Amino acid sequence: MKTRVGVIGATGYTGVELLRLLLLHPEVEVTALTSQKYAGTEIAEVFPSLARHLSLRCEELSIDRISEKVDFIFTAVPHKTAMEVVPFFYQKGKRVVDLSADFRFQDAKVYEQWYQKHTSPDLLKESVYGLPELHREKIREAKIVGNPGCYPTGALIGLIPLVKKGMISYENIVIDSKSGVSGAGRDVVLGSLFCEVNEGVKAYNIFKHRHLPEIEGELSALAQKRISVTFVPHLIPMDRGILTTIYVHFLKQVKTEEVLNTFYQCYEKEPFIRIHPKGRLPNTKDVRGSNYCDIGVVVNESDGRGVIVTAIDNLVKGASGEAVQNMNIMLGYPETLGLDVLPLFP
Amino acid sequence: MKTRVGVIGATGYTGVELLRLLLLHPEVEVTALTSQKYAGTEIAEVFPSLARHLSLRCEELSIDRISEKVDFIFTAVPHKTAMEVVPFFYQKGKRVVDLSADFRFQDAKVYEQWYQKHTSPDLLKESVYGLPELHREKIREAKIVGNPGCYPTGALIGLIPLVKKGMISYENIVIDSKSGVSGAGRDVVLGSLFCEVNEGVKAYNIFKHRHLPEIEGELSALAQKRISVTFVPHLIPMDRGILTTIYVHFLKQVKTEEVLNTFYQCYEKEPFIRIHPKGRLPNTKDVRGSNYCDIGVVVNESDGRGVIVTAIDNLVKGASGEAVQNMNIMLGYPETLGLDVLPLFP
Amino acid sequence: MKTRVGVIGATGYTGVELLRLLLLHPEVEVTALTSQKYAGTEIAEVFPSLARHLSLRCEELSIDRISEKVDFIFTAVPHKTAMEVVPFFYQKGKRVVDLSADFRFQDAKVYEQWYQKHTSPDLLKESVYGLPELHREKIREAKIVGNPGCYPTGALIGLIPLVKKGMISYENIVIDSKSGVSGAGRDVVLGSLFCEVNEGVKAYNIFKHRHLPEIEGELSALAQKRISVTFVPHLIPMDRGILTTIYVHFLKQVKTEEVLNTFYQCYEKEPFIRIHPKGRLPNTKDVRGSNYCDIGVVVNESDGRGVIVTAIDNLVKGASGEAVQNMNIMLGYPETLGLDVLPLFP
Amino acid sequence: MKTRVGVIGATGYTGVELLRLLLLHPEVEVTALTSQKYAGTEIAEVFPSLARHLSLRCEELSIDRISEKVDFIFTAVPHKTAMEVVPFFYQKGKRVVDLSADFRFQDAKVYEQWYQKHTSPDLLKESVYGLPELHREKIREAKIVGNPGCYPTGALIGLIPLVKKGMISYENIVIDSKSGVSGAGRDVVLGSLFCEVNEGVKAYNIFKHRHLPEIEGELSALAQKRISVTFVPHLIPMDRGILTTIYVHFLKQVKTEEVLNTFYQCYEKEPFIRIHPKGRLPNTKDVRGSNYCDIGVVVNESDGRGVIVTAIDNLVKGASGEAVQNMNIMLGYPETLGLDVLPLFP
Repeated sequence: MKTRVGVIGATGYTGVELLRLLLLHPEVEVTALTSQKYAGTEIAEVFPSLARHLSLRCEELSIDRISEKVDFIFTAVPHKTAMEVVPFFYQKGKRVVDLSADFRFQDAKVYEQWYQKHTSPDLLKESVYGLPELHREKIREAKIVGNPGCYPTGALIGLIPLVKKGMISYENIVIDSKSGVSGAGRDVVLGSLFCEVNEGVKAYNIFKHRHLPEIEGELSALAQKRISVTFVPHLIPMDRGILTTIYVHFLKQVKTEEVLNTFYQCYEKEPFIRIHPKGRLPNTKDVRGSNYCDIGVVVNESDGRGVIVTAIDNLVKGASGEAVQNMNIMLGYPETLGLDVLPLFP
Repeated sequence: MKTRVGVIGATGYTGVELLRLLLLHPEVEVTALTSQKYAGTEIAEVFPSLARHLSLRCEELSIDRISEKVDFIFTAVPHKTAMEVVPFFYQKGKRVVDLSADFRFQDAKVYEQWYQKHTSPDLLKESVYGLPELHREKIREAKIVGNPGCYPTGALIGLIPLVKKGMISYENIVIDSKSGVSGAGRDVVLGSLFCEVNEGVKAYNIFKHRHLPEIEGELSALAQKRISVTFVPHLIPMDRGILTTIYVHFLKQVKTEEVLNTFYQCYEKEPFIRIHPKGRLPNTKDVRGSNYCDIGVVVNESDGRGVIVTAIDNLVKGASGEAVQNMNIMLGYPETLGLDVLPLFP
Repeated sequence: MKTRVGVIGATGYTGVELLRLLLLHPEVEVTALTSQKYAGTEIAEVFPSLARHLSLRCEELSIDRISEKVDFIFTAVPHKTAMEVVPFFYQKGKRVVDLSADFRFQDAKVYEQWYQKHTSPDLLKESVYGLPELHREKIREAKIVGNPGCYPTGALIGLIPLVKKGMISYENIVIDSKSGVSGAGRDVVLGSLFCEVNEGVKAYNIFKHRHLPEIEGELSALAQKRISVTFVPHLIPMDRGILTTIYVHFLKQVKTEEVLNTFYQCYEKEPFIRIHPKGRLPNTKDVRGSNYCDIGVVVNESDGRGVIVTAIDNLVKGASGEAVQNMNIMLGYPETLGLDVLPLFP
Repeated sequence: MKTRVGVIGATGYTGVELLRLLLLHPEVEVTALTSQKYAGTEIAEVFPSLARHLSLRCEELSIDRISEKVDFIFTAVPHKTAMEVVPFFYQKGKRVVDLSADFRFQDAKVYEQWYQKHTSPDLLKESVYGLPELHREKIREAKIVGNPGCYPTGALIGLIPLVKKGMISYENIVIDSKSGVSGAGRDVVLGSLFCEVNEGVKAYNIFKHRHLPEIEGELSALAQKRISVTFVPHLIPMDRGILTTIYVHFLKQVKTEEVLNTFYQCYEKEPFIRIHPKGRLPNTKDVRGSNYCDIGVVVNESDGRGVIVTAIDNLVKGASGEAVQNMNIMLGYPETLGLDVLPLFP
């Protein structure tokens, strides 16, 4: 029998992408969708791309009604809204992957410093940060998974092997990320209008983007010492994709091949990590629509400077694909189930 | 046992799209790829998007060697090259879907008027025009399928129901098509450079595009009388998609609903046709990456003018997806096998 | 002494484009800007592109205060708002170019059929439809100029010579227009978000776009008989530009050269019309940022079908550039003053 | 009398942009154009955007013939070709702005390490690096100006004030640049095709881009000590623009305002530098088509990390606009002559 799945907040870009992937998944069935804005409307009317694949109306959120219809929950609502909802599903015994920031931090203080008061701090100990490449075992048993932010996914995957091996200086790590516009969500704001974004590029939220503590927190936990990084996100004129360029210093002279080997070994069994051979670099276009994270490495062998470049689709590996990957781990399905779609090129 | 499939000319845009779809197909295995330009190179080096999914080298075309390795052939080479190759596979007993124009016309004279001398005119009687919505039964038995052009696919699907029912005047049909740039192929030409195409739109080949005889030929055969149409293709700055706006005159006053009903009835069992309800119109963005053709209809009820709009992904329903659909029909597989990918939105 | 100019509604896309052009104009000075939304804000804060060129705060609209500061008015506010404002400036003796639809129709009934009740029908007789290629002499003396819509500009310029000469059938004129997204304005609506528009194309408002009566009205007046046309606008993923593809039938067999000659003669003295020689077609990219309308003509000489293609920048020749051209005519300046910017390619 | 100007290599993107700007310049007249590929062709046929503004045929390069027709030379040919041509014009007594790399280095050894053998090393002492913000006085008298690379322009303008004042550590400067596709030129190569570039982003030439020695050379000369930087260029899907994100460490704790003041003072008299106030950041869209370099500064006041962001149009301030600025300086014209075009937004 298929797992019945509900999507809370189905009408944003992560919502529709979650539906696309879940509808391809052979072991789940989407049985409930909620949307404040489109309650009562057929989802295929909101997203004509889904016509023929899903015939379900958006409904208002009722914990009781939804809980009867579903076995598993994805919350794709904004932070703050998520922590108002997740606890009720938790109490009903439903396991949840939350795509907001509300369950990404185990320390409520960190969350509260960057967001607002956390209304369910007790639940944080039940939640796991949903980066499978770091926390697969804990995710398996988790009641609540805090699905990572899009930028942290691209940044962490590029740094984990180097931090695990203690190969780099923890001073002066610079993370320069370039994101497509869907990362800003489907909110109707001036800055997301086509004519404001197209044919332009800008940096934003320098030193203060909310994904910074997520990156620093996970790296610090891994290194078992406090790591600060410089992180600057940029918006570029495309729908999907994040390219993350990471600048590091190796503690001793290394060759590019050694660093690549470290990546190969660390990610050997990872189904969604692809590492480019020496001399080749990733392009977000090669991962579009897929759950892959492609990685490239260049070392300046004479002085130990290194650049790691990662490419993901922010809506897939950076959000909904990773969420399905987490669900697969939680429910004991093969990790690639429903996620074996190939990238769409061109 | 899986059907072993070979792709002749695998390194163009229709080639890579064919591979994407075939690799999702549960009943086939890609066992041979040819490329003049990339012979000897791993396909995942040519298209990093395919990494992890296909580990196969491009090879030079050898009929004998390829024939041993494959049961079924797709030719995704330019016209002229196709008719130099297909006959040999035919002689080897292989069934072929040819994505070029070389086997789209049953009358060599028409072909020769728009292209060049046909070197295998005898084979044309073995070939079927591969629009399943028109010729499904013949495709089933065909040895060679001439896969339709991208523009004709979008145009014909919008006109077939009206011609079948004899509802429209055959004078003054205007077909205005807007195509993404991948329709021009992966040839390295000035006109396909990003900076030449981006932020611009133009018409081209007015009254003389080679897809015109294809459209007129099929419509005329269906109507059993000579139909001429005005067809103007346009290039617009996006990767994929063709929107076709068709201007017709109904022979008598009709309501939009009646026309929609004609479409519903005609396409009732078609797995890849989706018809928008009255008041809604298709967008190529809603079909991107999928084999769907979405249709919208508007009638000016006071005077019988009508506009039909169809949206397809030129690389899928307009090329490689339709080719796989044809293969499914030829081999007796369910028609949607390997083609049940959802559109990628946004 | 320079003419002091005020822009009512300066913070939309036509507003900022008007400012760009007026700031290049040697004989005018922008002395007042109004904006409901940004009143009190420096214009260069709203549009950083204007920094160094204009240091002026947006203010709330006060007829008295503005009238003291300016000699000439541009209203770049939505229709309905315009007719609430223009009469007061008229009473103050200011000449006005109105970029909305409110003063484009001499017959209030037509306006009211497509928009809403007209609150200043008496003023319509003081207003002139601001297409210089048609009404230059009347514009010279006009108190109020109703600046044409973007689509009508591209459509009319492609048809005027043919209607003047009576060369085409008035049945079955089809106008298929493709517009960049800035045509939708700077309103913050879902349909204008980058991710909704990018990589997609759609038709909209078929048979019911408000620019239809404008096109039909001007053509009918010119032909001195009622002309109906089929007009379908499309939205394509670029900032600026409208390509208009016009389908006509010549009353007798003509050669392409004859039609081109008709265009050359009709537009011989027009400073902003450029006609492509036989065999070449316009691209919106070649007119971007300029006030040009480029024209191409193709005739199917065997049967009298013709296609006229025009390309404009919707924000320049389709709005603000045409408005400045009208001001130049009204004030007796050389018509190209401030408008001799070249297109930006690429 | 106007200065007669010749453009050697007029049919690339920097060539056409040079023409756009020169045609707006009141004191010069373009009297000769060369193009190997388009010799004999009207320039308006190569670039329809120029129609009505320039009626001149491209010709083959003949030093004698061109020298008779022009007073001043721009060479917009590839490196290597430039140094084969410039010496002849120099001998004819013509002053030259060379847009290639061939006269950017005063030390032939540095050039030869990154490019190839320099065939006119003696002329390097006659040439000046054409960044007016650094070398205005020398440019005034120069016989040959080596016009800066596009990336170095954006990078150097962001670093000059800080290096002049000795405010930052010279270790660990990271320069992450994002360029539009026109930076790759008009060469017909696979990597510049629309479908290869659109909807993707990638890094390239990490640690080995040829603009690196240009950046390091100028910074080192300014600091009077050897400075190494980490420089990574990226290609993003837009026509024009370079956003440069520069990561620095201040030698002592500073406030954002202090750094901004350093920029204000250093660039007080610069006609093309615009500095954003605290809290605002530049966007390439705000400078498109103009010669501006917009700058934003953010300091993490607790630990002295700083981020400088600069935005230029790579074809204007990063190439042809800067070249015209250099010509103005060399010829004693007001520096903004012909360059007072406003940015095109949107």
